[in-house]
Order: sequence, then structure tokens, then C-alpha cells
Amino acid sequence: MRSFHVDSRAGIAGLAVREHERPTPGPGEVLVAVRAVSLSFRELMILRGNYVLPVRPDVVPVSDGVGVVVARGPGVDWPVDGERVAAAVFPYWRDGPLEPAYLEQLGGSLDGMLTEYAVLPASALVPVPAHLSDEEAATLPCAAVTAWNALEGVRPGDVVLTLGSGGVSLFAVQFARLLGARVIATTGDPGKAARLAGLGAGEVVDRRTYPEWQLRVRGLTGGRGVDRVVDVVGDLERSLRSVALAGQVACVGFRAGERPAVDSGLLFAAGATVRPVAIGSRAQFVAMNRAIEANGLRPVIDRVFPFDEAVAAFRYYESADPFGKVVITVPPRTP
Amino acid sequence: MRSFHVDSRAGIAGLAVREHERPTPGPGEVLVAVRAVSLSFRELMILRGNYVLPVRPDVVPVSDGVGVVVARGPGVDWPVDGERVAAAVFPYWRDGPLEPAYLEQLGGSLDGMLTEYAVLPASALVPVPAHLSDEEAATLPCAAVTAWNALEGVRPGDVVLTLGSGGVSLFAVQFARLLGARVIATTGDPGKAARLAGLGAGEVVDRRTYPEWQLRVRGLTGGRGVDRVVDVVGDLERSLRSVALAGQVACVGFRAGERPAVDSGLLFAAGATVRPVAIGSRAQFVAMNRAIEANGLRPVIDRVFPFDEAVAAFRYYESADPFGKVVITVPPRTP
Amino acid sequence: MRSFHVDSRAGIAGLAVREHERPTPGPGEVLVAVRAVSLSFRELMILRGNYVLPVRPDVVPVSDGVGVVVARGPGVDWPVDGERVAAAVFPYWRDGPLEPAYLEQLGGSLDGMLTEYAVLPASALVPVPAHLSDEEAATLPCAAVTAWNALEGVRPGDVVLTLGSGGVSLFAVQFARLLGARVIATTGDPGKAARLAGLGAGEVVDRRTYPEWQLRVRGLTGGRGVDRVVDVVGDLERSLRSVALAGQVACVGFRAGERPAVDSGLLFAAGATVRPVAIGSRAQFVAMNRAIEANGLRPVIDRVFPFDEAVAAFRYYESADPFGKVVITVPPRTP
Amino acid sequence: MRSFHVDSRAGIAGLAVREHERPTPGPGEVLVAVRAVSLSFRELMILRGNYVLPVRPDVVPVSDGVGVVVARGPGVDWPVDGERVAAAVFPYWRDGPLEPAYLEQLGGSLDGMLTEYAVLPASALVPVPAHLSDEEAATLPCAAVTAWNALEGVRPGDVVLTLGSGGVSLFAVQFARLLGARVIATTGDPGKAARLAGLGAGEVVDRRTYPEWQLRVRGLTGGRGVDRVVDVVGDLERSLRSVALAGQVACVGFRAGERPAVDSGLLFAAGATVRPVAIGSRAQFVAMNRAIEANGLRPVIDRVFPFDEAVAAFRYYESADPFGKVVITVPPRTP
Repeated sequence: MRSFHVDSRAGIAGLAVREHERPTPGPGEVLVAVRAVSLSFRELMILRGNYVLPVRPDVVPVSDGVGVVVARGPGVDWPVDGERVAAAVFPYWRDGPLEPAYLEQLGGSLDGMLTEYAVLPASALVPVPAHLSDEEAATLPCAAVTAWNALEGVRPGDVVLTLGSGGVSLFAVQFARLLGARVIATTGDPGKAARLAGLGAGEVVDRRTYPEWQLRVRGLTGGRGVDRVVDVVGDLERSLRSVALAGQVACVGFRAGERPAVDSGLLFAAGATVRPVAIGSRAQFVAMNRAIEANGLRPVIDRVFPFDEAVAAFRYYESADPFGKVVITVPPRTP
Repeated sequence: MRSFHVDSRAGIAGLAVREHERPTPGPGEVLVAVRAVSLSFRELMILRGNYVLPVRPDVVPVSDGVGVVVARGPGVDWPVDGERVAAAVFPYWRDGPLEPAYLEQLGGSLDGMLTEYAVLPASALVPVPAHLSDEEAATLPCAAVTAWNALEGVRPGDVVLTLGSGGVSLFAVQFARLLGARVIATTGDPGKAARLAGLGAGEVVDRRTYPEWQLRVRGLTGGRGVDRVVDVVGDLERSLRSVALAGQVACVGFRAGERPAVDSGLLFAAGATVRPVAIGSRAQFVAMNRAIEANGLRPVIDRVFPFDEAVAAFRYYESADPFGKVVITVPPRTP
Repeated sequence: MRSFHVDSRAGIAGLAVREHERPTPGPGEVLVAVRAVSLSFRELMILRGNYVLPVRPDVVPVSDGVGVVVARGPGVDWPVDGERVAAAVFPYWRDGPLEPAYLEQLGGSLDGMLTEYAVLPASALVPVPAHLSDEEAATLPCAAVTAWNALEGVRPGDVVLTLGSGGVSLFAVQFARLLGARVIATTGDPGKAARLAGLGAGEVVDRRTYPEWQLRVRGLTGGRGVDRVVDVVGDLERSLRSVALAGQVACVGFRAGERPAVDSGLLFAAGATVRPVAIGSRAQFVAMNRAIEANGLRPVIDRVFPFDEAVAAFRYYESADPFGKVVITVPPRTP
Repeated sequence: MRSFHVDSRAGIAGLAVREHERPTPGPGEVLVAVRAVSLSFRELMILRGNYVLPVRPDVVPVSDGVGVVVARGPGVDWPVDGERVAAAVFPYWRDGPLEPAYLEQLGGSLDGMLTEYAVLPASALVPVPAHLSDEEAATLPCAAVTAWNALEGVRPGDVVLTLGSGGVSLFAVQFARLLGARVIATTGDPGKAARLAGLGAGEVVDRRTYPEWQLRVRGLTGGRGVDRVVDVVGDLERSLRSVALAGQVACVGFRAGERPAVDSGLLFAAGATVRPVAIGSRAQFVAMNRAIEANGLRPVIDRVFPFDEAVAAFRYYESADPFGKVVITVPPRTP
């Protein structure tokens, strides 16, 4: 079987495919025949060597994927052979708050999903919604769970602000609507405004028309500000100027290398909670899947590449500013 | 001005209209020109003399109504004249949990809304969603707030069970969908199944086909049971047999005179919380209105009667098994 | 090694000790050399054949115990050999709400702790507070976790009502004080009043002086009622008459064979939530241990018996109305 | 009657006492004969002209005080004459989250308590615990409510970090213990360590021994960090380095003029929520009083000054680094 591996100093150019013996799952593990994976921004950070968590040299990259169980190690009752599953990005984070012991993650400190067969802890796996294709299901573990977590506690009628059209933001628009919230989205590309509106954004603020878009957001809420910001870029100051008193800024991430300093007086004056969001637990993944299934929600996919063109997929993801997830499919193999 | 009054021993026949001087609001009070009121089951219990809370003799009935502020007493900054408002059914319950001091209620221990002009505490009032007609806005204070409260904590993907098509149940179907839940509704009238589905019920269980409908509900959830029952009839045993482990039965009310005993062993074995719901606070009313407004939700109205035909409205409400609220409009007056 | 086994139709007389080969832990399992176990009311119900959950014929009884890890099966990183641990009564309930898949329990459907060596799933184990003796630590899994769970959400200044002096009630008194609550305890034995007060009960109501003790409880709270009832006897009607509006009755259990019917009207009128409590999750066990450790709390032990006198321990527990837990110690063995 | 007034550009020197007619309460208001007030850091900021919220020119300063109702305006049922009460610092913030409409505050935009008689909205008042002296009760509205709010959600066994020995920090030590938490306190004055320990701090870190005290705090928690930081100084970076993953930094305030920039990457990496705390609602004040009363807790008072020496009290508060609240008593007057 073939797996891709990361040379973390070399960027996308360092991706290398290698042939391996098909592994045997150990106690508590299963062997999954991967069918599709999807790319997230963390993959680029890992390849560039500027990811926030430790990365194992030569690791198999990509946290997100879906596959079918083909073998089980000792002591595994569930999942059974043939079941279609995905793994939580933090395989040891089952439920409750994140703890230091749970920080190992797929495609980082642990081998990930850009491989024909993956050995995964059974306790990290979740069944995926039946109405989704493999390509769609492969988009869920990182971006969707992050968006779900970022919206925890949002109530119908709340106003949610999303920034741009990355993977987390698109899921955030969809989930916010599913929660009965009103969505304001920003975009730097007027061509994407209609698509954001189509996903459920009630208002789209063009950042080129409104370079100080936080003022526009405040205006759209009658000066009050939004109840929740899903901040995927780490522009905390604008987020704090957009958010309502007693609202929340969910900090999903920072663009690599940019760590703007925040005026702590502004933080206090905004009167809003700032909450870092680190993807989510397996329990949140399960709850999210229930919501996706009950509402027939479908992820947005921009483009699908075959396994052999994985490097091209990364280059496209890096440069094309996609609207929706970039997916890589793994062809069927003879077991 | 004219007001209806209750002779609580006489049923609907005891409703009497009387002429009054138009009252002057005292400190902290406003005078509201009522435009529309709506009927709830509590009104019938009050008229029949079997309501659970104290009823003042000769009280002006009906908790639910909407009107426009026409005068303010000393010390009132808000609402201003001309504002369209409704009052919380418990005018002194502003926020937080219900306390004994908050148990006074409109149309019960305090004069209600079936009157041309009502004097109300300013602090009990809420603005109503702008997109609603007076008739629609008049339906919110009791049934909609009750349904909203009964669904507190429901998450997308949860399964909600509603019973029949009374006012609370119809709002519960609508709100549950707005929360991203899957709705199972019961009905005793096949003609209503399609309308329940139209409001958002994913499955409708006909109680005539399934007299033991709790078994059917359990079947529809793969044996697991529902996450929330909005029990408007007090049939706790069936509710407990329908609900999932760790779910909740929200007890909204009991049909007058029927108080079936519950096997406490069943209560324990069901492993679900039983929570009585007594309408809700002003803060819940405000939060609900935000959700209604953000989602353009419209209440279901069965039929509208003019003020002069209020008695006919009560008789219709009592006997016609309406699908949606029965509303009474108050004609414009010369101020 | 020796284990006790249950003949569930024979009561305590059916307890039989048998010699076994010392077992080998499988994948994900550890072998624990048991040091002490403690008895709970569920043990009597299991022996009498009237327990609410399924009991495996010939099962090793007793859910509660503490021991030391002496061997690990494949795939177990934690706990390491020599670590002192207890197991969650529901070994598969890790965190979050109870689900049907978690209902297996030690000393019921699974072999329990009244044995010299127990094979247990590693994922069910918790470290126990270092300041506790083995005898003390052995009291925690069932009664203490139940009390902890029953008090979830209690805030400083709340009033908590406990009933009698069974294991759960004594822990409830201690935990309620640790939470800053005011405790009212009932007792049928004046000799125990001072000991309840010594544990932290601010007021003790003698049920012989006040047969209608719920009236006394209401009086002690100025008519308001208590915020939380930890109801260990299933006397729901008195609990509902003791609890405040918007309070909660935590239903911990029912005396075998007694399932008094509850007036559903009373349930509604009380305006309090009724929540069945089924012990608790491993995560709750861990959180409780942290609290016990941070506060130097010590369980109350009534009497300790050696392993060879286990039957006498059961008879004492059944008949002596102990104040505190009855513990059975397992003598050191040669490994 | 006499009131002090603020000239906000002049510091303490700008405090001026003036004689007034005793005012008459309007609708919804009561007249309170003030018995004692206490000083908070906000008072100094207001006098220095660098407070974060608007200050009315010539305002009567000081938010915190206790007094007795001597007259009621129209429409006031409660409190009755003779009742001892304090006012919420934000008189219009009754319950729920803070909203822009609630930002008026006593001793800032509204006249405060450094006066012989204060006119206050009845709806802002709370009864104070009966076991407290007037001087003690006068310390509660700002510092104690802030500490209470800052600790919301703390559970027994959590580790709480307090900084120094200002008013909020001392209450935080006391409340954290009452919640069953373990407390780590810092101090810059070894003479205060024993007193902090006496209030309940399990460990006291001397900032002179450990200039990088955040490292010591982390060490004391085995590297994990604390669950809650009550940050009264705005040193967010050290707080973020002290807090556990999934913990919370409650931002209570900033020393005037210092607003250190925060590395947003650190904020993200800490994985802890940052929550600004702006005193609290009337409902939180009421809940806190219940807890104080149930536990017989007593505030720490450093020194008491008479009304005529109010200016000296301010100077002492500013310069003496008190351990406990500085209180000013108002002598009895002839009504």
C-alpha cells in the first residue's frame, strides 16, 4: 500500500509517496481502507513547518478522511468490518474539555489519512452520516467540527459573524443557519457573495467596499454588535470591535506567522469572552453528525483530485482560494 | 371603554362585557390600546373555575394580547407612546427562574387583555416582531413562550416529540425545526397530519392507527426514544415511555380534572428528567421574539373574531378543535 | 484466587466463595489485586433478585472496590503496575450523558469486586485520592459518585435536603457543605442527629417528632422549600412537597418493591424538576476525586470486616442500620 | 443633608462636600439613609478622570454602601421603610447578561453613596445578610459581586489563582474556598502571606521570591496550570501562562493607564477562555448574599473612617496598601 509522508521543512515539495506493507491493527485498533481525504489549512502549516503543535518527522499527513473498516485488532467490538467511519482529529479526546493528554493529533504527531490504509484507535472513530458521499464525509473531521465547536451556545435569533470563505467559515454559515441564527459573512471577493448568501448568510459585507468592515458589521446590527464571531484569521482587534457586549469571539486560528498584539484595554472594554477553539472532541463530532443527518446538510466541495494527484491538490488548495473543501479520493484496492 | 369580565363559576356563559372609564396609568404603568388578543386553554380553565393558580373574582380575562401604548404613568421611560407591545403573562417574572413572588398573572390574579384599554406595568412589556400582524403578534405571550421554554436546551439533531395540534404544540413544531431538531408529532386527526408536516414535523403518528403511540415513537427512533417530549396533556406515563435515557419530558400542562398517577419506578427507570414548564419569563419572551424575527417565523392562526363576538370566539375555541390560534381583534377607537 | 458469586434468588445465603485460576487480562484490560470493597444497597437488591438492571447468573458481586494494578493486557498504557485504582460502576460510561450502550455494570451484568483479583477495562479505572486509606477509597464508586451527581448544579447558599443516613445521604451532606450549601437532614433515629450535624447538616429533622417532616422542612426554609432534594427512598410526594419552585428532586433510588404512585398534578404544581440519578460517569468520578482531594474530605466508615467474613458483613449491612459504609478488606496475597 | 461631589480632574483633592435639601423619591424610587460606604479602585479612577465608563460632572461618588429605607416614592411596594439595603452598582442590570442599556452606574453616571441620603431605584436594591454589620455590608456591591461573578462556574477541586490583596482578590479567596476550590494567591508583601492563608489560600506565592510567579504557579499545579485566574491587574500574559488548557482568565480590571498588548498567539495557545467581568447583576448580588448568609462569611475590613474624614479615607486607601476594605461610616441623623 502507498502512503504520503511529510518532510516538514520542504513545503508541498516535500510530500513523498512511499510503498509499505499493509499494517496489522494492534489491540484496540482497526485498519481502515481510506476512501477520501480533505485538506485543511493546518496541512499547509505542517508542510511549512510552522504548525503550533508538534509534528512527527516523516508523518503521514492530513487529519481528515473517511474509509471503511477492513480489519480489527484484539479487543475491538466496534466498529465492525465494512462500517464507514471517520476519526476525530484528536483521537484521544473523547468528551469534555480538552486536556494536555489529548493533544496528539492525526497528520501531526500521529500518522494521518493520506494513505491507502490507516491504522486508527477504534475509540476515536465515528460513523458518518449516511446521506453523504465519501467525498462529502471526508470534509468533516477538522473544519466542520471546528465550526460546530465555535458555535456552541448560539441560540436562535443570535447574530453570527463569519469571515471569508475558508472551510471553517462555510460550515459556520451552514451550522449557524441550522441553529436559527442570523448570519453576517465577510468576503474579499464579490463573486463569492452570492454563494455565501446561498448557504445562508443574510448579509455579506464586501471587505473591499468596507475596508473597516467591523464598522459595517456594527452598523448592520444597529450598533449592538454580533453575538458570536467565528474568527478564523486571528484579527482579534476587528473581532472585538464587531462583537456585542457579553458576546463571544471564538478564535479558530491564526494565519501563519501573524500574531497581532491585542490591546488588553480593548479586550476588557469589549465586554465579550474570547474563546480559543481547538477543533473538538469525539463527542462533539458525534453530535454534529446527528445534526447534519437530521437536517440533510451537505458540505461544500470545491474540487476533487485522485490520490495520484495529491500534490496537485495541495497546490490548488494553497493557491486557488477555493470556495469549499478540496478533496482527494483514494481508488478502490483489492483487499 | 369596554372590558370583558369573568364569573369564574359560570364558564363561557359567565363572560360579561361592561363599560368603564378609561383608566389612567399609575407610577411605572402604561396604558395600552389593545388591538388583538388570543385564546389559550388556561382561559377555559379560568372560566370553568378549575385553574391551578388563584383567579380574582370579576377579573378581565385573557393573558395574550398586543396593543399600542397611548399613555404613560410617572417614571416610565420606555415604552414610548405609539410603540406596539405585548405583556409577559407573569408580569413580574423578568428573568431567571420562577419564584413565588412572580406568580401573579394577567387574566388570572390580574386584569388581562380582553378589554379595549389595558393598564400594564411597563417592566412587563416587550416589543413584538415587526413582521407580524397584530393578530399574529397577539398569539405569542402564553403558547409561544411556553413552547420556547419547553424546548430550552434542545440541540440540532435532537428528536422532539409534540402531542396533538394545540397552540403550544404547533409553536413547538416550528421552534424545534428552527433549532435544527427532528420533529415527531402525534395527531388524532389524519386531516391534520399534512399540516403538521407542513409546519416541520418529519413524522406524524396517527393515534388512531397507533393507540399505543409511544411504541411507534420509540420505533421511529430505533428504540432509543426522543430527546424531548413537549407534553401538553399530562399523560406522563406515555411520555416517559417515549423519551430517551437522559432526555427530558417538559410538562406543559394537564387537561382539566385529569391527574393520572405516575408509577415512580417508571419515572426512575426512564432515566429522563421531568420538568414542569410554567410559560416563561419576560427575558425568554424577548429571546423568542428575536428568534422569530431573525427567521421570519409566522404563528398559525385558525380563525379571527371581532371583539363583539368574543363569546363566540370562546365557544369556537372550546368546541372546534382548531388548528392554530383563535384570535379576537379590537376595533380602532377614537383616542 | 478466591471470588464470591451470587445466586440471585437466594439472598445473602446464596453467596458462595469459589477458587479460580488467577485470570490474565485481555487487550485493554488490567488485573487488579483488590484491597477493599464496600457495600451498597444495590448489592442487597441484586442478592434478592429485585435489582432494576440485568444481573448475570453466578456473577461476582459488589461494584465498589479499590486495588492495585498487578498486570496489564495488550494495548494498555495506563494505569501502570502498582497504581492504586477504583473502577467506575458503569465501566463503559466515560463522560457525557448516560446512554443505553453504557448500562453494563460491575457486580451486576459484569463481574464485580468481591474477589481477590479482578480483571477490569483500563478505560474504566480512576486513580483514588492519595490521602484516603484503602478502606476509605473503597467507598467511593457507587454512593459517593451518586451523591456527587445528585448535587450537580448546587450553588453556595442553596438549601439541600438529605434523607436518613445511608451511604449516599452521608456523602450528600458532606458534598453539599463542600459546595457551600446549607443542609437539612432527616433522621428517624435521634442518636444520629448529632453525627449528621457533625458532618455538616445545619438542621436535622427527626421524623418521629415530625412524621409529616416535609412540613417541617418547608417551615425551616420560611415556606420556600429547598433547592435540591437528594431522594434516596423514592418518596416522591414528600420530596415534591419539600422542594422550592424551580428546585430539583434528584431521584437516587427506590426501596425495593415500593413504587408509590405520584399525583402528576402535584408534580406540575411543585414547579420543580425531577431528575433520576444513576450513579455517574467516569468523568464525574474523576471530578469528585479532585474535590475530595482538594478538601481533604474523608468518607464515613461504620465497620470493617475481613474477606473471610464477607457474609457477616452483608448481614450486618442489611440489619444494623449502619451510619457510614460497611467495608470488606482483602488480605495481602503473594503475587 | 450633606453629599460629597467629584471634580473628576482634581483627584482626591477635588472631593467637595455640599449641603442639600433632603430629596424626595420619585416614582419607583426610595430614599435611603446611608449608614456606611466602602471604597473601590474605581473610585480612584473616577477621581483621577481615567475611568472606562462615562462620569457625570459633579457626581456624588462611591458605588458601595448600605443604608436604611426612610421614604418611598409612588409605586414602590418593596423595600419597606426600615429595611436595610444595598444597591447594585449597575442599578438597571437586573439579571442575565450585561447589555448596553444597563451601563449607568452609581458613583459614575449616577449619583452614588457618599452622601447622607441617597435616592435609589427600588428595583436596584437588595437586602443584605443579617449577620453583617453596616460596615461589613457596605463592602459588598462592587468588590464582592465582582469576585462572585469572576468565579462563576468554579467547581469543588478546581484551582483558583488570585493576585495580591485588593478587595476583589480577598473576596475571591473567600468565595473560592466556599466553592470547595483550592486557592493559590500571590502577594508582593510577605507580611500578608499568613493573612491570605488565614482566609483560605492553600498556597501563597511571594512575587519577590518568584518574580516570574506564573512559573511557580504552574509548578504548584504539576505543570497543568490553574482552572481560573481572577486577574485584577490586567497582566494578561502572565495570567495566560498560569492558566490550564480549557481554564478561564476572568479579567476584572486593569491598573489605570496600563494596557499591555497581548500576543494573540499566546492567547490561542493557552487554550483558555478570557472573560471580562464587569461587576455583576442584581441577581448575582442576591445569589451571593444567600451564599454569604448560609456560610456566615464575613468581609475583611482594614479600617473605618467617619463621614467627616472621607477625604482622609480616600488618601489612606490610595497610599496604605490596605488588606481589606476601607469603610466610611455615616453618623445617625435626625430624620
